[in-house]
Amino acid sequence: MSSVSSPGIDAKRNEDFSEWYTQVVLKAGLADYAPVKGFIVLRPYGYAIWESIRDLLDRRFKETGHQNAFLPVLIPESLLSKEKEHFAGFTPEVFWVTKAGDTDIGERLALRPTSETLAYSVFAKWITSYRDLPLKINFWNSALRAEIKATKPFIRTSEFLWQEGHTVHATEEEAEQEVMMILDIYRDLIENYLAVPSLTGYKSDGEKFVGAKYTTTLEGLMADGRALQMGTSHHLGQNFSKPFEIKYLGKDTKEHFAWQTSWGVSWRLIGALIMVHGDDKGLVLPPQVAPIQVVIVPIHKDKDAKLVKDRAAEIESELKRAGIRAHMDGRDEYTSGWKFNEWEMKGVPLRINIGPRDIEKGQAEFVRRDTKEKIQSERAELVDTANKLLANIQESLLSRARAFLNENTSRPDSYSEFKSIIERRGGFVMAGWCEREECEERIKQDTGADIRVIPFEQKDKPAKCIYCGQESKKAVIFARAY
Amino acid sequence: MSSVSSPGIDAKRNEDFSEWYTQVVLKAGLADYAPVKGFIVLRPYGYAIWESIRDLLDRRFKETGHQNAFLPVLIPESLLSKEKEHFAGFTPEVFWVTKAGDTDIGERLALRPTSETLAYSVFAKWITSYRDLPLKINFWNSALRAEIKATKPFIRTSEFLWQEGHTVHATEEEAEQEVMMILDIYRDLIENYLAVPSLTGYKSDGEKFVGAKYTTTLEGLMADGRALQMGTSHHLGQNFSKPFEIKYLGKDTKEHFAWQTSWGVSWRLIGALIMVHGDDKGLVLPPQVAPIQVVIVPIHKDKDAKLVKDRAAEIESELKRAGIRAHMDGRDEYTSGWKFNEWEMKGVPLRINIGPRDIEKGQAEFVRRDTKEKIQSERAELVDTANKLLANIQESLLSRARAFLNENTSRPDSYSEFKSIIERRGGFVMAGWCEREECEERIKQDTGADIRVIPFEQKDKPAKCIYCGQESKKAVIFARAY
Repeated sequence: MSSVSSPGIDAKRNEDFSEWYTQVVLKAGLADYAPVKGFIVLRPYGYAIWESIRDLLDRRFKETGHQNAFLPVLIPESLLSKEKEHFAGFTPEVFWVTKAGDTDIGERLALRPTSETLAYSVFAKWITSYRDLPLKINFWNSALRAEIKATKPFIRTSEFLWQEGHTVHATEEEAEQEVMMILDIYRDLIENYLAVPSLTGYKSDGEKFVGAKYTTTLEGLMADGRALQMGTSHHLGQNFSKPFEIKYLGKDTKEHFAWQTSWGVSWRLIGALIMVHGDDKGLVLPPQVAPIQVVIVPIHKDKDAKLVKDRAAEIESELKRAGIRAHMDGRDEYTSGWKFNEWEMKGVPLRINIGPRDIEKGQAEFVRRDTKEKIQSERAELVDTANKLLANIQESLLSRARAFLNENTSRPDSYSEFKSIIERRGGFVMAGWCEREECEERIKQDTGADIRVIPFEQKDKPAKCIYCGQESKKAVIFARAY
Repeated sequence: MSSVSSPGIDAKRNEDFSEWYTQVVLKAGLADYAPVKGFIVLRPYGYAIWESIRDLLDRRFKETGHQNAFLPVLIPESLLSKEKEHFAGFTPEVFWVTKAGDTDIGERLALRPTSETLAYSVFAKWITSYRDLPLKINFWNSALRAEIKATKPFIRTSEFLWQEGHTVHATEEEAEQEVMMILDIYRDLIENYLAVPSLTGYKSDGEKFVGAKYTTTLEGLMADGRALQMGTSHHLGQNFSKPFEIKYLGKDTKEHFAWQTSWGVSWRLIGALIMVHGDDKGLVLPPQVAPIQVVIVPIHKDKDAKLVKDRAAEIESELKRAGIRAHMDGRDEYTSGWKFNEWEMKGVPLRINIGPRDIEKGQAEFVRRDTKEKIQSERAELVDTANKLLANIQESLLSRARAFLNENTSRPDSYSEFKSIIERRGGFVMAGWCEREECEERIKQDTGADIRVIPFEQKDKPAKCIYCGQESKKAVIFARAY
């Protein structure tokens, strides 16, 4: 895909994080800008990472009783505005269709900013009795929100790929369990597949999903010290079931309003992968979600070409048979040095170099993307070595990211220290909060940091609110965020 | 999903085909109407069929070197209008976005009616050298075309799920091969998985894709005698590469315009499944794409409940271990008669009835959905019997549909006979054509039948044009179509 002249990343991650990020996205072939400002095209390599994420989640959703379905992208304005608070939250960024061909359509149609209202108008028809519950539906689609702020591929774009789950339950408790089960599926994906540690907990009322009773979240910390919200799972209570009349006839032969949840993750997760694991050479992908786990580069002069390529192809088949996503780069029009740079930029976790001398010695050389370490392997042990190295890379990416998160979580004693940390080094800042919106708002205005998450784990709660000094009700994590 | 009171299909297929179709769609839980006219919601059971189709195709596309990617749904008007003929073809049915929030956007944005123009504006940036070719990309998304005619779920809706493939090649021949390879992948899917026979060939110039050099098609015949276009694969020649400047530097160090193809199938294929195989009881699904291949219904009084359900669950696991998509319907709130009707309506190919007497005798009873035939099977041979019956159902659906297609393909000798066939019984009508658009147009005005396909296979070409009596250049298939 890249042309011969395609240069490597020339921005340094620690000097100009934003420019470095953009270069990784474009040069590793993950995405490209679309003709309309704020929109991106997901290129095949980026899409393959999205497919890894999608397939993992899809399997988990199905195992836990969810089914996929499809809703139109167009939502009538009257429907979108049925839950007032929800509508007010989304309306400034809604794209509106007003014409079909040359004809003005009657009521204008919103491009799906999220599907609660449309889904629930339909669910109301499907649910009549307790026998129809729970209803657990997921949609893999894209959402559209006109972004006024500066856009950033994967992190903030006017259209994004995501999944949105919507469930309906007979009881509040069952909805509560669903919210937490989904959050746990997300945590497992993000931690054990994307190798990104996160803090889980509640959003403050000021930051929760518009229309939710409460929102739970997973917050990650990027290499530049800014937080990223990586997924949310909402308890909607009966806030939607009442206006949308989602009612069921119970075993008690009485009508009840149902309890609901909604939840989603998006291609933001690809942004997190870049910003947590990437380095000056480009992307570093965790083996579990890497479209190519091992790339094999034959190194040869013309006279050895056939011998070396045949052996490289043999290794490729051997790895593939063992279930490893391997790729032999046999292109003649590029030098091996050029190939090394390209596959490093694309973050392939392991490379095998194979040349005539390796073949003579019955060996091959592995090169780890994360540590650049070189490892010799006997030909007979290739699959074993590959599997061990992949597992090791997966683990070591997570533990490195976890160490970074811990090192960059501060606990200031005073508001002046708090401000200086946010200004000087960023990261997560754990502080006490009195639970008054006023303090939350003031801190945000002063420092640009907001409450990212109120952790479930509350055992280290500071005694006083970091802003007003009154008794603290909760330990919360502040940060500047994407 | 269905409520207890959900009745069966009460329209007869041979009396009111259109009403029968709508009832199958709604009552089998495939789809539902959306709040905006002309749009539908794909329900979980319908989506599961779409997933079967998608997964089969996706694997074939990847095996043949295609990669998935994602494009935004919004296309600037200036881009859409870059290829004039193409634009003129689509513009009457384009949905236009004119506002974001309260702001009028500058240039209006089209909702993707198809992605040629957007894709090619991006491909032009990616392709510089012969090294970048071929580029073979597929998009799984939805397309939007405001339907003025009466809409029909799956067959004609203002938004539909589909895949659109777009490839770029160095030579015309390579593009030609791609067009035919894709058509063959479609044919294999439609024939060997959907059990729907089709005729393959070219579209006439009057019916080809707007902007294509030529279009190849697969035409199926529905049970009411009307034709359905099931997939198309287009050779675009250089019609788009020139306005979009998709050029590459050849090995000859000269610049060349590239050659292109595009191709797609949509959820229409679900419509075809219904209209080819369905009967008065509802859907009949070919085992290869059935989300549930075998449903097991335990039949018992209260006292035997545990025994029978345990055995039914055992059978379910056994079938699942053998790779069969089995489902045990253990719901207590429905009678077995109700369950029989529901699973028949949903078209599950095989049912196993199991009761206390079957358990005593070490047997189980299979019921075929297609023929209603009952088959006793020894308990030990259950998996074998299921596999054999499923293979047999798959084959017999195809051969029945093929017989229907053959019986309903006529070869009239005169135009009056032609008109009478179209009027009286429909079906495919094979006739000679002089290749003049005038005759094609007159026949269409007279009879409502158009040229569905100019078959690749031309050995039975009639001598004269059915309309004007001049020498016939091609044997073509006329039909009234969806």
